[in-house]
Amino acid sequence: MSNEVMVIRDPEVAKLLADDTRRRILSLLRLAEMTPQQLAKFLNKNVSSIMHHLTMLEQGGLVSVTRTEVRRNLVVKWYRAQARRFIVSYELAEGLVPGSEDYALKIEEKAKGAAAILARMTPGLSEAQAIELAELIRKLHVLWIEAFEKALSKSPKEGDPSINDMVVKALTAANLYRKPEYFTILKRLNELLGETIG
Amino acid sequence: MSNEVMVIRDPEVAKLLADDTRRRILSLLRLAEMTPQQLAKFLNKNVSSIMHHLTMLEQGGLVSVTRTEVRRNLVVKWYRAQARRFIVSYELAEGLVPGSEDYALKIEEKAKGAAAILARMTPGLSEAQAIELAELIRKLHVLWIEAFEKALSKSPKEGDPSINDMVVKALTAANLYRKPEYFTILKRLNELLGETIG
Repeated sequence: MSNEVMVIRDPEVAKLLADDTRRRILSLLRLAEMTPQQLAKFLNKNVSSIMHHLTMLEQGGLVSVTRTEVRRNLVVKWYRAQARRFIVSYELAEGLVPGSEDYALKIEEKAKGAAAILARMTPGLSEAQAIELAELIRKLHVLWIEAFEKALSKSPKEGDPSINDMVVKALTAANLYRKPEYFTILKRLNELLGETIG
Repeated sequence: MSNEVMVIRDPEVAKLLADDTRRRILSLLRLAEMTPQQLAKFLNKNVSSIMHHLTMLEQGGLVSVTRTEVRRNLVVKWYRAQARRFIVSYELAEGLVPGSEDYALKIEEKAKGAAAILARMTPGLSEAQAIELAELIRKLHVLWIEAFEKALSKSPKEGDPSINDMVVKALTAANLYRKPEYFTILKRLNELLGETIG
């Protein structure tokens, strides 16, 4: 595998992750080399649909062919994910890159969904506060990706993944400390969610 | 699958995750039902070793048999993980539960490994500061698991996983805000790591 983590900076590539089947294919190919036939069997889909998704993922640079075999005049290809983990850059989540508006909108919608769940759990929250909550959750998400991405760029690419993970977490935390908005967001989340927290 | 996330509170079960092959088996079984034969092929191990690991994982309640078939007088079993994600409780990471000292020690060792990497990246860091760094990373890790675990217990078990993930993140962040040590740790990490952060 080329990388432990790959940061996606191309909005067209980010859109590939919007599809559930493609996300499941990627998840499987992070763990093992597989043929389209094997993937089809595991995911209970037909082979031609899997091959279509694999072509898109390969063009986006998220998977690659690791080996090819000829079996009874048929070419069989094994695929593998290019990284163990994929994250979409904060620039796309903020809609800062042309073409990433869709992805930014998706994050906003998910944040609204999360706020709606939390609002149902929190008695006495006004509608205006629920809207504020959605925006806080969106900002927290983007802030966190930004800090994580920076931490990742400084972290070792080789070695024990669980130790590297701790390095990334420490650098992410130290990065977040440098953003005054981080504390403002946490403070306000704590105020709004009150007893729901724990 | 029974759960999205399972929190492991039994030190004996936590120890099962220490083995690399068992972690890889679990990762595969989170994504798809598989037989010991399929797992052996994917992980390039012999079937009897895989079966031994599966028995341990099944006894620990981490995987279960989803279906059984008889093929040419042989019983074939399909296994599946009991959750999409497993986390070890902060109580075990702190060594608060009898029998979890080994696991707590493992976390401590990993934190030391992470601190050593960061120390190499940070010129001018003294040996005493590197030791302090390891302890900060360990504490941050445990604090984060504790907050995450609490957040998880409040979060919905059903629905869109990526939205639930945002709910958990928001609750985790709000939880961390309530721990004064969190800010002390972030502040000190920021001081020690200085320019390394980014």
